[in-house]
Amino acid sequence: MSDFHVYDTTLRDGAQQEGLNLSVADKLVIARQLDGLGVGYIEGGWPGANPKDTEFFSRARSELKLEHAQLAAFGATRRAGMRAADDPLIAALRDSGAGVVTLVAKSHDRHVELALRTTLEENLAMVRDTVTHLREEGQRVFVDAEHFFDGYRANRAYALEVLRTAAEAGAEVVALCDTNGGMLPGWVADVVHDVASVVGSGGLRVGIHCHNDTGCAIANSLAAVDAGATHVQGTVNGYGERTGNADLVAVVANLELKLGRQVLPTGLLREATRTAHAIAEVTNVPPASRQPYVGSSAFAHKAGLHASAIKVDPHLYQHMDPFGVGNDMRLLVSDMAGRASIELKGRELGFELDADLARRITARVKELESNGYTFEAADASFELLLLEEVEGARPSYFEVESWRVISDHDGLTEATVKIVGDGERFVVTGEGNGPVNALDAGLRAAIGQAFPEVQQFELTDYKVRIFDESHGTDAKTRVLIETSDSDGSWVTVGVGENVIEASWEALVDGLTFGLRRHR
Amino acid sequence: MSDFHVYDTTLRDGAQQEGLNLSVADKLVIARQLDGLGVGYIEGGWPGANPKDTEFFSRARSELKLEHAQLAAFGATRRAGMRAADDPLIAALRDSGAGVVTLVAKSHDRHVELALRTTLEENLAMVRDTVTHLREEGQRVFVDAEHFFDGYRANRAYALEVLRTAAEAGAEVVALCDTNGGMLPGWVADVVHDVASVVGSGGLRVGIHCHNDTGCAIANSLAAVDAGATHVQGTVNGYGERTGNADLVAVVANLELKLGRQVLPTGLLREATRTAHAIAEVTNVPPASRQPYVGSSAFAHKAGLHASAIKVDPHLYQHMDPFGVGNDMRLLVSDMAGRASIELKGRELGFELDADLARRITARVKELESNGYTFEAADASFELLLLEEVEGARPSYFEVESWRVISDHDGLTEATVKIVGDGERFVVTGEGNGPVNALDAGLRAAIGQAFPEVQQFELTDYKVRIFDESHGTDAKTRVLIETSDSDGSWVTVGVGENVIEASWEALVDGLTFGLRRHR
Repeated sequence: MSDFHVYDTTLRDGAQQEGLNLSVADKLVIARQLDGLGVGYIEGGWPGANPKDTEFFSRARSELKLEHAQLAAFGATRRAGMRAADDPLIAALRDSGAGVVTLVAKSHDRHVELALRTTLEENLAMVRDTVTHLREEGQRVFVDAEHFFDGYRANRAYALEVLRTAAEAGAEVVALCDTNGGMLPGWVADVVHDVASVVGSGGLRVGIHCHNDTGCAIANSLAAVDAGATHVQGTVNGYGERTGNADLVAVVANLELKLGRQVLPTGLLREATRTAHAIAEVTNVPPASRQPYVGSSAFAHKAGLHASAIKVDPHLYQHMDPFGVGNDMRLLVSDMAGRASIELKGRELGFELDADLARRITARVKELESNGYTFEAADASFELLLLEEVEGARPSYFEVESWRVISDHDGLTEATVKIVGDGERFVVTGEGNGPVNALDAGLRAAIGQAFPEVQQFELTDYKVRIFDESHGTDAKTRVLIETSDSDGSWVTVGVGENVIEASWEALVDGLTFGLRRHR
Repeated sequence: MSDFHVYDTTLRDGAQQEGLNLSVADKLVIARQLDGLGVGYIEGGWPGANPKDTEFFSRARSELKLEHAQLAAFGATRRAGMRAADDPLIAALRDSGAGVVTLVAKSHDRHVELALRTTLEENLAMVRDTVTHLREEGQRVFVDAEHFFDGYRANRAYALEVLRTAAEAGAEVVALCDTNGGMLPGWVADVVHDVASVVGSGGLRVGIHCHNDTGCAIANSLAAVDAGATHVQGTVNGYGERTGNADLVAVVANLELKLGRQVLPTGLLREATRTAHAIAEVTNVPPASRQPYVGSSAFAHKAGLHASAIKVDPHLYQHMDPFGVGNDMRLLVSDMAGRASIELKGRELGFELDADLARRITARVKELESNGYTFEAADASFELLLLEEVEGARPSYFEVESWRVISDHDGLTEATVKIVGDGERFVVTGEGNGPVNALDAGLRAAIGQAFPEVQQFELTDYKVRIFDESHGTDAKTRVLIETSDSDGSWVTVGVGENVIEASWEALVDGLTFGLRRHR
C-alpha cells in the first residue's frame, strides 16, 4: 500500500466541471471526506492564482487535521524569461503549507509554441529551474506532464526530455496526463511501458491522469498501472471538465477488489459509497444512480425470475459483494435492502436495534427516501426518526399552530409564526431578507421565549435540491439545513412541494434536535 | 462495414434500467431513431413472454419501415424436458416476424444447476434443439451466452461446449455476455482470443455484450473487438440494469474515429448526438451532460487562459472534431474568462465585437461573476448582457411596477404582479404550490395579455444554489431557470439575497429573451 499513490484532484481539476462551484467551506468539507476515505494526496487548488484557493490553503493550515492524506498545491512552472525565485506564483506554491507541490509542465511541443509562446529550450529551463528551486526550498515536487500522450505522438523525444528534465531536477513523480482524454487503454499501456523503461529508474515514480472523453478513463488508468504506473490521479464521482476525469473511487475499487492491489488503508474502501454521496451533497451535483460501485442502482436487481437463485447464492448475480464498497444489494420489487446498514447506523448512534425494530426503521427510511428524503447527510433527522421508533414518540418541545410569510419586490419579507411551547401560546413576527430567513427568525424568537437555549443555535448551512426538474417550479423540493451551537453541528432534511414547506420541516427538526441535545 | 454487426439492445436490455418504462409507442419511436443512426440490428424485446413486446413485434410489422436495421426477437432456449417445436415461447419467436432470433443460453455450469435446475447435458440439448428447430423453420439465429465470462472461469470446457453446440446447430453468432459486468479489458481480450481460436472458424461470428459494473464496459467491448469479435451489443446512452450496458454510441464512435473501423453506414455517425438526445426525450431520463462524445459538456471549454490558443487551433484542446458525432464545441464564459474568450463567444452568437466592446463586456462579466452570477450555463442572460452593450440598451418589453407573494402553512401561495407592457397596466394574481411557481404564473398571465406568445413558453428546469453557506439563510442565492418553446430552450440566471428575488430576475430575463426570439 505504501508504495502506491492515490492522488485526488476533485478540488482542483474536478472543480473545472461545468456548473460546479465550490466555496472554501465546501472544499474543507470535501477534503475531510477524502481523508476519511484514506486517499494519499488531496490536490487543493492553485494558491496564488486564485484568491479562493489561496484562502483554502491558509484555512487548511489551522482548520484541517488530516489523518491519511497530504495536501498538494497545484501550480505551473515559472513564467518564461524570469527566475523561479522571482516568480510570485512560485512563491505562493512554496509558502502554501501543503506537503507537496504539483507543477504542471508542457510536454507537447506544439503547446509550448502556440499556447505558452516560448521556445522548446526555454520550456525545459522553466521545468528545470522551478523544480530545482522548490527542491532547494525543501519541497516535495510532483510534475504533471500536460498533453503528454498527444505530445508523445507528435514528438516523442521532446516529451521524454521534459520528463527527464523534471526527474533530474528532483521531481519525485511524473504524472502523464491525457489532457484531451482521447486515449484508449492499449495506447496508454504502450506509452507508459516506454516511459517507464526510458525514465522510470532511480526511484522516479510514473503517474497517470486520465479524462473520460472516450469513455475509457477508468480502463486507461488501470492500463497505466498494469504497465508500471504507481500513482493514479482522479476525482470523486468522476467530476471534471467536459466528460470528466477518471472516477477515482471506481479505479481504486478495481485495483483493490479486481486486481488485488491494496491502495487505501485497510477497511477504508468500505467508506466509498458514503463518501461519494456525501461529496455529491456538497457539490450539489445529483449522484448518478448508475455509477459503478457506489451508485444507488449499482447492486439493484429486478428480482423477478432470479429471486430464488439470488437467495441461494447472490454471487451468481453480482460481480462482487457490495459491502466491500459500503453499498448494498437492493431487490427492486421486494424489501430486503438496507437492514444491515440501518443496524450499523443505529449502533453508531448508540442504539442496539433488534431485528424487528431494524426492519421497521428500514421500511420507513425506504419509504421516505422514495419520497425524496435523504438520510445520508441528515444525521439529525435520522436520529429523530430512530428515537420515534425506539421511544414510541418523536421528541417534541412545541406545537406549530400556523405560519405565514409575505415577500415583496422591495426585498422585505416577514413571517408570522404561531406556536405553543411549554403550555404557552406565542405569536411572533420575524423579519428577514428572504422567506426562509424570516421563518427562521420568527420560529427562533417564538420558541426562544420558552426555551432560551435556542438563541445559541445558528443556521450555518442551507442547501436546496429540486427533483424531477423537468417539471420546473412544480417539482418536489428537498432542503438540507445545518444548525450549529458551540459544541458542534447537525443536519436535518425537509421535503415538500415548495421550498418554503420543505425548509419549515427542516427548521423545526433542527431546533427540536438541538433542544434534545441540550436536555 | 458489411462485416461488422452493430447490435442495439436498448429496447430489451436497456429497458431493464431502474425507473425506465417504455410503452409500445415509445419503442417504435426509438426503433426509428436507431435505424436513422444506421445500427444493423435492433433487439425489440421478448415476444411471447411479455404482452407489450408481443404487441411491439406485431405493430412493427405494419408500422415500422426500417432502412438499415433488422429487428431481432429475444428469447430463451426451449424449456427443459420438452420438444422445441412444442414450446409456445419458441413458436412466438419463430412467428414474431423479426429477421433474427436471439436466444439466450446458459453457459455457466452453476447457473444451469441452480437457476435453470437442470443437468448440464439437458442444457446442451436445449441449445441444440432450439437452434436446430428455428434453423429448420428458416430463421437466422444468434445465441447470447449468458454469464459466459464467469462460466469460462468456473468451467472452461463446458462454457466452450455450449458455444460449439450452438454453432454446430447453425447459430450464426455467439455473443459472449459479461452478464454481471465484473470484467476488465485484459481479461475480456484473453477469453475472446481463446474462444475465437477454439470455435471461431467456419464462419461463426463471435460477439460481445458488456455491462458497466467496473466502469469498463466501453473498453471491454473494444478489447473484445481487438481480440476478434465482429458483433457488438450495447444500448444508447448506456441504459441498462444496475450500472447499465455498454454505451453503444461511444463504442461505435471509438471504433470509427479512433480505430478506423467503419461500422455504420457512411456519414451516419454524425447523427449520434441528435439520436442520443432524441431517445433520452422518449425515455424521459435526463441526458448526462458528461456523456462521452454526445454529452452537452463533452466539448465545452472553460476558455480562460486557453482561449487565445483555441483561436489558433481548436484541435490543441479537443481529442477530435465534435462535428464527427454531430456535437459542437462550446466556450463557457466563466470568471476565468479573458477578452479572447468573450470575443469567441460573441462570434458564436453572431456578433463581431471590437476590442473596446469586448473589454467592457469582459469587465462586466467578471464583476457580475464575483457577485455570484454565472454565465457558463446561462447563455440567454449572457446574450441579453451582450445586446445591452452592443445596442446601448437591454431588450425590454415590459416594466415591473411591483410584486408580492404570500405563503402559509396550508401550502397555499399566491403572487400579485403589477406590470406595464405595451402601454397598458396589468394587475394579476397567480396561484402556485410555492412562491416561485406562483410568481411565474402571475408574471406569465400579466405579460400574456400584451404578448400572447408567452403562453408557448414553459419553465422546464429550475436550479437553486446558495453561496457563502456559512451564513445560512442569510446567504446569497443564485437561481438558474430554463425556459422552452417548441423550437428550443434557453437558460437565464438571477442572483439575490433570497431565493424569491433571484428567481424573479431569472424569470423576467427568461420571458424577455423568449420574446426577443419571437420578434
